[in-house]
Amino acid sequence: MQAMTEPVYDFRSDNVGGVAPELLEAVVAASAGTAAPYGDDDWTRRMTARFRQAFEHEALTAFPVATGTGANGVALAALANPYGAIYCHETAHINVYECGAPEQFTGAKLVGLPGTDYKLDAARLDTALALAGRGNPTRVQPFALNLTQPTDFGTLYTVAEIRALADVAHRHGLLVHLDGARFANAIAALGCTPAAMTWAAGVDVVSFGATKNGAMNAEAVLVFDDAVAARLPFVMKRGGQVVSKARFLSAQLDRYLADDLWLERARRANANAQALARRMLAIAGVELVGRVEINMLFVRLPPAAVEALDLGPFRYYKLGREQRFVCRHDQEPAGMDALIDTISAAVAVA
Amino acid sequence: MQAMTEPVYDFRSDNVGGVAPELLEAVVAASAGTAAPYGDDDWTRRMTARFRQAFEHEALTAFPVATGTGANGVALAALANPYGAIYCHETAHINVYECGAPEQFTGAKLVGLPGTDYKLDAARLDTALALAGRGNPTRVQPFALNLTQPTDFGTLYTVAEIRALADVAHRHGLLVHLDGARFANAIAALGCTPAAMTWAAGVDVVSFGATKNGAMNAEAVLVFDDAVAARLPFVMKRGGQVVSKARFLSAQLDRYLADDLWLERARRANANAQALARRMLAIAGVELVGRVEINMLFVRLPPAAVEALDLGPFRYYKLGREQRFVCRHDQEPAGMDALIDTISAAVAVA
Amino acid sequence: MQAMTEPVYDFRSDNVGGVAPELLEAVVAASAGTAAPYGDDDWTRRMTARFRQAFEHEALTAFPVATGTGANGVALAALANPYGAIYCHETAHINVYECGAPEQFTGAKLVGLPGTDYKLDAARLDTALALAGRGNPTRVQPFALNLTQPTDFGTLYTVAEIRALADVAHRHGLLVHLDGARFANAIAALGCTPAAMTWAAGVDVVSFGATKNGAMNAEAVLVFDDAVAARLPFVMKRGGQVVSKARFLSAQLDRYLADDLWLERARRANANAQALARRMLAIAGVELVGRVEINMLFVRLPPAAVEALDLGPFRYYKLGREQRFVCRHDQEPAGMDALIDTISAAVAVA
Amino acid sequence: MQAMTEPVYDFRSDNVGGVAPELLEAVVAASAGTAAPYGDDDWTRRMTARFRQAFEHEALTAFPVATGTGANGVALAALANPYGAIYCHETAHINVYECGAPEQFTGAKLVGLPGTDYKLDAARLDTALALAGRGNPTRVQPFALNLTQPTDFGTLYTVAEIRALADVAHRHGLLVHLDGARFANAIAALGCTPAAMTWAAGVDVVSFGATKNGAMNAEAVLVFDDAVAARLPFVMKRGGQVVSKARFLSAQLDRYLADDLWLERARRANANAQALARRMLAIAGVELVGRVEINMLFVRLPPAAVEALDLGPFRYYKLGREQRFVCRHDQEPAGMDALIDTISAAVAVA
Repeated sequence: MQAMTEPVYDFRSDNVGGVAPELLEAVVAASAGTAAPYGDDDWTRRMTARFRQAFEHEALTAFPVATGTGANGVALAALANPYGAIYCHETAHINVYECGAPEQFTGAKLVGLPGTDYKLDAARLDTALALAGRGNPTRVQPFALNLTQPTDFGTLYTVAEIRALADVAHRHGLLVHLDGARFANAIAALGCTPAAMTWAAGVDVVSFGATKNGAMNAEAVLVFDDAVAARLPFVMKRGGQVVSKARFLSAQLDRYLADDLWLERARRANANAQALARRMLAIAGVELVGRVEINMLFVRLPPAAVEALDLGPFRYYKLGREQRFVCRHDQEPAGMDALIDTISAAVAVA
Repeated sequence: MQAMTEPVYDFRSDNVGGVAPELLEAVVAASAGTAAPYGDDDWTRRMTARFRQAFEHEALTAFPVATGTGANGVALAALANPYGAIYCHETAHINVYECGAPEQFTGAKLVGLPGTDYKLDAARLDTALALAGRGNPTRVQPFALNLTQPTDFGTLYTVAEIRALADVAHRHGLLVHLDGARFANAIAALGCTPAAMTWAAGVDVVSFGATKNGAMNAEAVLVFDDAVAARLPFVMKRGGQVVSKARFLSAQLDRYLADDLWLERARRANANAQALARRMLAIAGVELVGRVEINMLFVRLPPAAVEALDLGPFRYYKLGREQRFVCRHDQEPAGMDALIDTISAAVAVA
Repeated sequence: MQAMTEPVYDFRSDNVGGVAPELLEAVVAASAGTAAPYGDDDWTRRMTARFRQAFEHEALTAFPVATGTGANGVALAALANPYGAIYCHETAHINVYECGAPEQFTGAKLVGLPGTDYKLDAARLDTALALAGRGNPTRVQPFALNLTQPTDFGTLYTVAEIRALADVAHRHGLLVHLDGARFANAIAALGCTPAAMTWAAGVDVVSFGATKNGAMNAEAVLVFDDAVAARLPFVMKRGGQVVSKARFLSAQLDRYLADDLWLERARRANANAQALARRMLAIAGVELVGRVEINMLFVRLPPAAVEALDLGPFRYYKLGREQRFVCRHDQEPAGMDALIDTISAAVAVA
Repeated sequence: MQAMTEPVYDFRSDNVGGVAPELLEAVVAASAGTAAPYGDDDWTRRMTARFRQAFEHEALTAFPVATGTGANGVALAALANPYGAIYCHETAHINVYECGAPEQFTGAKLVGLPGTDYKLDAARLDTALALAGRGNPTRVQPFALNLTQPTDFGTLYTVAEIRALADVAHRHGLLVHLDGARFANAIAALGCTPAAMTWAAGVDVVSFGATKNGAMNAEAVLVFDDAVAARLPFVMKRGGQVVSKARFLSAQLDRYLADDLWLERARRANANAQALARRMLAIAGVELVGRVEINMLFVRLPPAAVEALDLGPFRYYKLGREQRFVCRHDQEPAGMDALIDTISAAVAVA
């Protein structure tokens, strides 16, 4: 068990952080009075209005859920046919890290494609879908494309790439799901509007994550189409995703979008990671794995540095011979300094 | 949309209420510092310790989840075999009000049995299981018994009834799941210990609800067996039930059990319903449907009374020709008075 | 293991019999030459044409399958939505004797209703569907009605009863599935046309059984609607129901309908059961359970008679204190005489 | 529709052929007398005894099924856990050509690995399983390895390769399923015993195909372990795979193994394909794709040859720019000559 008295510098993930003050305030404020359960409340209605404004889309419907896996599950289930296939990158979060949840929610098969930088490529997708056997009863029938934006490995699709992939998907009869567990980090990095990265680029349904950017277990499924929206309440209930006191999620999400604080947090988290990357690269023997486009970096540290970090008050994840560091908006400067110092010292001695 | 300026007297359900002050405080306090996600944190460990103490069971494991449907789904999935049957009352919450969630989580078939007072009867269960075709491949194989305690209709199993049902279930090779969405109301009404109503009576896994009694979307799945506990994390992830910042659920549940406030709230809610029932019965033409054992009452009001209530600032549910009123611990006395006055006046005129 | 030298009089079921000579001939004839697999062959095309003629429906599509459970599974799966409910009698074959196959094929929930003579009642169905919560996300959404015709207990819906039930189902937005494992026995008993008992009465999809009436593991799923037919090949493949050398099923089904032999066999089987029932009722102490409308009878024999039968060369099923006897078209007269004699003798002595 | 008067030379697949005479005889013979349905009959018991002898394994249990997809589905379902993964080659039949049947039968996720010659590689499997995240709740848990032997592309695992793969699988806690739709062709080509290629090499469950080698829709699931065998009847019923008059499958399978005819047929089919390959390779411009190890060859013909074949009485499959020819044991010599002549002539002219 982690001792709670000494300072710990935590780079494990962005969901190790607390809740942003204004969101905590929104939660406390929502506790006054009574409200109908299961999302039939004023906070949820206000949240939907707020999303419509933020996404510049009048027909958008927003559904509050408590987990990202749940958001992905119900988003895909609302699109699914019973003998279908969901195309995704072979390293997609839904394909690797959800213990088969998308399969349980949808009954569909996930088809993972390779692609550089952990991203799908429009031409390769086109070829794969052309060979998928549309109409052939021995083959599962593609109905959805999943894009993880940003990817679990910190890379980003450009808006043009999303549009190209969505065009291919639509041409082959698929709908497009964007898994945006780190939606804010993507928007902050790309500098585009939420609309530009989603429906205007051809995305049909979004898992909008807020938890990794300061919320308390609050995500939203965003749908731009009424027929899909009509199925969401059923697949949500069936998936155990309808929260009883939904107002406490909706109040957060409403407040989240009310000003620029969500983007400011994301910008700071991204900037922290980029600063860390720069400083690490200046140390002899440290190798960067992949690009640093949002708030996470993958590096290959010298063994001596890893040993040194394991003695100190640092928390981070190891993936084989690589190390992952994720930055929060409120990453302690002292912690980042200490991290760099520890690695530098270890390398210097070695 | 509900106008928010005038007073509204809300008898729809106990989950229309806010969050108990001490639980809100626990949430705010848990926001300090960082913690590993997904339940690998000190709050969750403390919560488990607290449950062990409260339930007088050293091997208990507690898993925090955000929804009651999710809790039931994963509790049953951890017990399930792929061609199994879950026996329950035909009016059981899992059988009627979860849109097929138990089936999606488990792949099993629900077999609903009749029974007076919305409760299963041990002798009838014994007969049904004897005829269930154990070992016959044309028949689904019973593996779990579900008890909703209290039932959705406000009735209670006695501890002896639970024990008798669990004995029958165990004799036929089933494990016993207790759906305790209103666990506190049952304990408050029965005056027994949590241990007495669960493992000591033969219950193997519990959906422990706290949301309807003052928590903010915090429930726990309680398991008394290590083999079952080992499966929970997988079925939870697969079901989208692993909350990212689990500490905000665990902190509530830990605080919830820390003193007698949870039972006091439940006692008050129960008492409010019983007082309401007494006062209603004193009005000519009001008929009580079923017994009032916890915090809900079902009545048959004269049509004039229903019409009058529909004009006033009251909220409640209608089920055909019956009306349901659920009381919270913090039900406004003015609201209860107004409810009785409105009904009385309508009846007097009619 | 059953001794194969002495005569055995077998009343267990109609599927204990062999294959009708003309169907065996059709199988042998179909073995000449090559044919595309999986139903893309001339025999299957001829079979569909034959069904269109026999059912007087030009848009009918027929799919050959090897098992009745498979036929029911794919028929229902082609109708299913992922949060749906299939309404059926509580004793329906699909609800009790298929080990959860309909649930596995469809993901839907089966809702069993009571009803006299093991049959659904239109008024009761109407009430149940009115209370089913159409549009309410906590409730599974009804999409199919299953009628077992004849029922597993030997009773029959009249054409008018089917029409009334189908009307109710359609009015509530459900499609109607007729499980006709003993289709021929029903037609023979009712004396109506296949059209009258199916599409003309509002049935949307049929499991047409031939195996219990002389075929060798050959059933057909009959669909009257092109949109449903388009889904069948996919749900069949996914359910492992697409037979490789489909011509051997189609050739049988084509031959089956080519003349009146199928109905003659069914008439004889029905008549055998009715004769047996008459003769049993003439014996003191023998009680008939339910009506004898097709080729099966349920009786309550005196214990002495049961003991006597168990010594002799008879095979039949016991269900608690009742006994089931099913007659084939080629039931040996000597066997029926011996059965009656054995019971009579046992009763006389006792 | 194919004209039935002119000769057609059919190279589409081995399941376009008829039924071997001795198997037809066995079917006709089995039609005499009555027998209990669903596999509780003497033919099925004799079949199991025959398989035990042929596979030199006293604890083997054999289950008759009508389709290969069904055999694979129930074989894997009998091994499955509800959050599991089945490892297979990315081109495995179960992964590509069964419309998601294994997923529907098991609820598991299929993980496809690359590998040359369409075969899995033991070292690569070892690495993949080491990284699979055993015990990590975010990851599906591997429980089965699927080997398609021969592969759908006509290649073969050696016995040593199977043993190496099974060793890796067992070391990681997986059971091994061999999909032997063309089991006979593999045995004929390898010259080993059925025992050597299955249980003695570490295979735990087998889909034993006979249909592609002369049977009429008869396959067997072979299990070498009693605990797995105990689950088969349930997953079979639930999957609609329990054939009513099972004796007609069992009688075939019993006769199939009664002498060497099954191997002789397979040897001839293999030899036909090898002869065809030799003769094709002698033609300028014809390119062989992959090795010809059993009864199928993949070639790249000059466009002129393809055009010429499409005029003539030939049937075969095209896969993009490649052509597949599968040989039956009774492939007409005249047809093989005509095929070679047509290609040669087309090439000579071009």
